[in-house]
Amino acid sequence: MEEQHFKGRGKPIRCRAAICRKAGEPLQIEEVEVDPPKAWEVRIRIICTSLCYSDITYWKMEVPPAIFPRILGHEAVGVVESVGENVKEVKEGDTVIPTLLTECQDCRDCNSKKSNKCSKIPFTISSTLPRDGTTRFTDSKGEEVYHFIHVSSFSEYTVVDIANVTKIDPFIPPNRACLLGCGISTGVGAAWKTADVEAGSTVAIFGLGAIGFAVAEGARLRGATKIIGVDLNPKKFEIGEKFGVTDFVNPSSCGKKPVHEVIAEMTDGGADYCFECVGSASVVHQAFASCRKGWGKTIVVGVDKPDSQLCFNSNEVLLSGKTITASLFGDIKPKTDIPLLVKSYMDKELRLDEFVTHEVQFEDINEAFDLLLSGKSIRCVIWMDKDKQNLPL
Amino acid sequence: MEEQHFKGRGKPIRCRAAICRKAGEPLQIEEVEVDPPKAWEVRIRIICTSLCYSDITYWKMEVPPAIFPRILGHEAVGVVESVGENVKEVKEGDTVIPTLLTECQDCRDCNSKKSNKCSKIPFTISSTLPRDGTTRFTDSKGEEVYHFIHVSSFSEYTVVDIANVTKIDPFIPPNRACLLGCGISTGVGAAWKTADVEAGSTVAIFGLGAIGFAVAEGARLRGATKIIGVDLNPKKFEIGEKFGVTDFVNPSSCGKKPVHEVIAEMTDGGADYCFECVGSASVVHQAFASCRKGWGKTIVVGVDKPDSQLCFNSNEVLLSGKTITASLFGDIKPKTDIPLLVKSYMDKELRLDEFVTHEVQFEDINEAFDLLLSGKSIRCVIWMDKDKQNLPL
Ligand SMILES: [Zn+2]
Ligand SMILES: [Zn+2]
Ligand SMILES: [Zn+2]
Ligand SMILES: [Zn+2]
Repeated sequence: MEEQHFKGRGKPIRCRAAICRKAGEPLQIEEVEVDPPKAWEVRIRIICTSLCYSDITYWKMEVPPAIFPRILGHEAVGVVESVGENVKEVKEGDTVIPTLLTECQDCRDCNSKKSNKCSKIPFTISSTLPRDGTTRFTDSKGEEVYHFIHVSSFSEYTVVDIANVTKIDPFIPPNRACLLGCGISTGVGAAWKTADVEAGSTVAIFGLGAIGFAVAEGARLRGATKIIGVDLNPKKFEIGEKFGVTDFVNPSSCGKKPVHEVIAEMTDGGADYCFECVGSASVVHQAFASCRKGWGKTIVVGVDKPDSQLCFNSNEVLLSGKTITASLFGDIKPKTDIPLLVKSYMDKELRLDEFVTHEVQFEDINEAFDLLLSGKSIRCVIWMDKDKQNLPL
Repeated sequence: MEEQHFKGRGKPIRCRAAICRKAGEPLQIEEVEVDPPKAWEVRIRIICTSLCYSDITYWKMEVPPAIFPRILGHEAVGVVESVGENVKEVKEGDTVIPTLLTECQDCRDCNSKKSNKCSKIPFTISSTLPRDGTTRFTDSKGEEVYHFIHVSSFSEYTVVDIANVTKIDPFIPPNRACLLGCGISTGVGAAWKTADVEAGSTVAIFGLGAIGFAVAEGARLRGATKIIGVDLNPKKFEIGEKFGVTDFVNPSSCGKKPVHEVIAEMTDGGADYCFECVGSASVVHQAFASCRKGWGKTIVVGVDKPDSQLCFNSNEVLLSGKTITASLFGDIKPKTDIPLLVKSYMDKELRLDEFVTHEVQFEDINEAFDLLLSGKSIRCVIWMDKDKQNLPL
């Protein structure tokens, strides 16, 4: 049996990857060599990947932690091609989702219900694999190509650490499964795990991108009675209804009234839960002001610039009784929680279909960037090879 | 029956009160006239009162919301002397604790388990009674004397709103009961209700005054295994042991090592719960740094200057998974929770005796200020008339 596992292994694979060679320039589809997995690693054939806003952030970024050449992409589903030494958890042919967060299932954090921040292999904006700090990608000139947050799914094959791999039900369609690799899990998790939204509560969501809609979807499934979407783009309002958004506030149409006053009027004093999905300190303050005194919770989901500060008047915090909390990856533990989200979709509860507004072939990956940047897409699925879409069951 | 309730009412009472006429100057015992209670009000004969640090803060303060002449004091127990119209909840002779926070038992906050911030009669640093915004005290020259946060217990008689009155078990000794009017309830509540400390957890308490010790006492009763007291005054360490403090950190004896590193070493990465009981934004940051990544909670109990800002790097908050929350009056609902604390003391669980380090007669009230300012007392009980200490059962 052991023999069989190691059969296809040990050799580099030549395949296509979309390489980001310079900040903000179109990705280039090139041939790369993908090394075999080392100990504790898994080589995955990517079936499809979707574009998340963080890919754009690191595509545009000119200074460290940006690094080039790099293979971006971190929302994907694939099939295990081969595994390195010590890997028992998955085997060739398993359907898996690679994730930016790890779950070693061994450390104090992984053993605690309260944390999704594995301390054995902590999350970093990494450019290499975590255990030995090296890369598995080489370009046609023999030069090293960097990884992105332990995933790098804009490649037909990638190598990831076993701590970053979640095995899932192979019956879920790949262009739905990939969404659970980052954005949708983050939003649903923020509503379910971070906020713990309860039936009958009121929710305000600042920023209607995929994550904001996923928060709405999570709140809808929990039975929130009022789900207010706040966005400057009125086109987002129509889409929001599919995810349970009941009311819309466009800050540019509020006249002189501040958004938090509009929300206070709609909710008898403020929303029970306010989610910031924009990644802007000033929007965090708006969200905080929009929360109900006494118990309102502001959940920071969006990621701002590294030096951004959140400041609050300490007595205002004390007297208001409002709390502020952040939600990284929706407080989702990948291996524990993603299979539950897959099941919820298969059981026709969690909506995923509605997130996918566009699908393109790998060679058209730059179109996916244009669609997201222009606000036209919620999620664009990028197929590595649509003919090979069927997962080997 | 109605007749009987109104029997002793309708007339002003002349009695002694300790008046603060100028910021930072000794209180003067003077004769005042205390008006009868208006509708929804209760006139209370104070049995004893203890000195809380907020009395000192407002005694020292020279600018608004400070106001003079004023009767300070807000940690007390007394007996109902008479009640105004519409008051059915208490009657003459009942033993009561007046509190700075209200509980109208009718508004949305009072009906929610999540809030102790009554919205019908909100907490303010008030100088009058809440319903009609007038005072009930007049000095011997016929001039108005101001109230303090709805209580003003440095007077033999005071008038408070029924929403600020909690009826308690009359069998509890008054020099223990009075402590529950503010500081001890705040600290125990911060551990029980705000943090919800669980058995086996680790706790760090910044600032070992009465509130800090009450946090320790609350954590001890919940079964916290490590309770670290942080204070610059080593004398506080010995007292802390009575309240379950297991370890002490004196920031001035840590050498070059920052306090949060010392605490991280003592707790395998940081305390589960860090309580800031000093009222200083810089100590809040120290507490936040001392919390365990992944689930650490910083609870702000101390009150800083009105313009003080709490600033955090937003990505640090996001990546650390730590939360910050404030605790006003320990999230205690006075009428609901104070009777439970009284019961806990009567059942020999909650320790109160150990908080009382000094007792003085009313005429020596300024000694109580000296004792607290010099750090010699934890709580000094001030008896209005020790011969009349027995509550009329
Ligand atoms: Zn782990
Ligand atoms: Zn993402
Ligand atoms: Zn109320
Ligand atoms: Zn107090």
